[in-house]
Amino acid sequence: MTPDPTPRLDAQMAFLREADRLKSVTRATRLADNTRFENSAEHSWQVALFALTLADQAPEGCDLARVITMLLLHDLVEIDAGDAPVFGDHDAAALAAAEAAAASRIFGLLPPDQAAQFRAIWDEFEANETPEARFAKSLDRAVPPFLNIANGGGSWIDYNVAWPRFETQIGARIARGAPQLWAWLAPRARAVFDRLAGTRR
Amino acid sequence: MTPDPTPRLDAQMAFLREADRLKSVTRATRLADNTRFENSAEHSWQVALFALTLADQAPEGCDLARVITMLLLHDLVEIDAGDAPVFGDHDAAALAAAEAAAASRIFGLLPPDQAAQFRAIWDEFEANETPEARFAKSLDRAVPPFLNIANGGGSWIDYNVAWPRFETQIGARIARGAPQLWAWLAPRARAVFDRLAGTRR
Repeated sequence: MTPDPTPRLDAQMAFLREADRLKSVTRATRLADNTRFENSAEHSWQVALFALTLADQAPEGCDLARVITMLLLHDLVEIDAGDAPVFGDHDAAALAAAEAAAASRIFGLLPPDQAAQFRAIWDEFEANETPEARFAKSLDRAVPPFLNIANGGGSWIDYNVAWPRFETQIGARIARGAPQLWAWLAPRARAVFDRLAGTRR
Repeated sequence: MTPDPTPRLDAQMAFLREADRLKSVTRATRLADNTRFENSAEHSWQVALFALTLADQAPEGCDLARVITMLLLHDLVEIDAGDAPVFGDHDAAALAAAEAAAASRIFGLLPPDQAAQFRAIWDEFEANETPEARFAKSLDRAVPPFLNIANGGGSWIDYNVAWPRFETQIGARIARGAPQLWAWLAPRARAVFDRLAGTRR
């Protein structure tokens, strides 16, 4: 009835089967309505939707399709390495090594040409040097504050983060690749931090 | 400290805020590991990842970036209209009307040029006529069987679906835009149906 599946398609489907596990990686950020923590699969969709919607903020000549490809792939390594909350304590070198090993294993499920292609896109994202990677990284950093503004503080409360740390550690990274978006987020984030500081006092 | 946000960015962010609700739309399909039902946001990521991974099955000349854009946007209407399980009973005309109204409201949150652009992409997906829409639609139809094969039956059990109905109603639609993928899925789906039929006997 049906022809034999090709080894190429077998490999692609094995990769897609493994990728399904990203739905079970929980992040430190809650939904905008504060009902639960989000997972890395729905986050990957959301940040790709940010890229699509905020395309007019991409730098001149930036390949938006490549940005979106990066964002669809960027968190797959968390299937093995887990999500490292940005305000948590972790050994950066150990995390980078775990993520690189995860990239080798997970992209390695694909046919060799695609494994190399997806790995190169992931490496480019991590290196954060091309215009595409810088825009993608800044959007990735912008989504949690966007959600925290909506849900009233979220991970900023959980990790006891104050405005100066947020502005230095996160704001600067968002501003690097998406300055307009940071300009929009900053006063709204600041208002939440001010309200939280008032509550704590 | 920061410049005033532009009305354009305000509108884009209002759209993105509303889009977050797609994470709370539950589908009839379970994760591959059968631990829970999936939601429409993570599904949207998954089907975009299918398009990226199975790009070599796209028809000649197909614009893959447009396929992925379609898939990132295709389920947003479910925020208002809900997810209508493919094997469930629903009034097709009423559902189409509810989804069109949802598209008007949700895409209407965007700046007018973008609202028109995203709506046109959604309309193209729904019309299922261009090569991009046909490929996107076939992938969208293929993901639930892919998950049901992994989780041992899933929505086929819940909706008491037998092989002939699945082959006619779903298989034909997958085969239309992604015949190779259908050739891969068909024997694997059939094996699950045969096992379920044995259990029911």
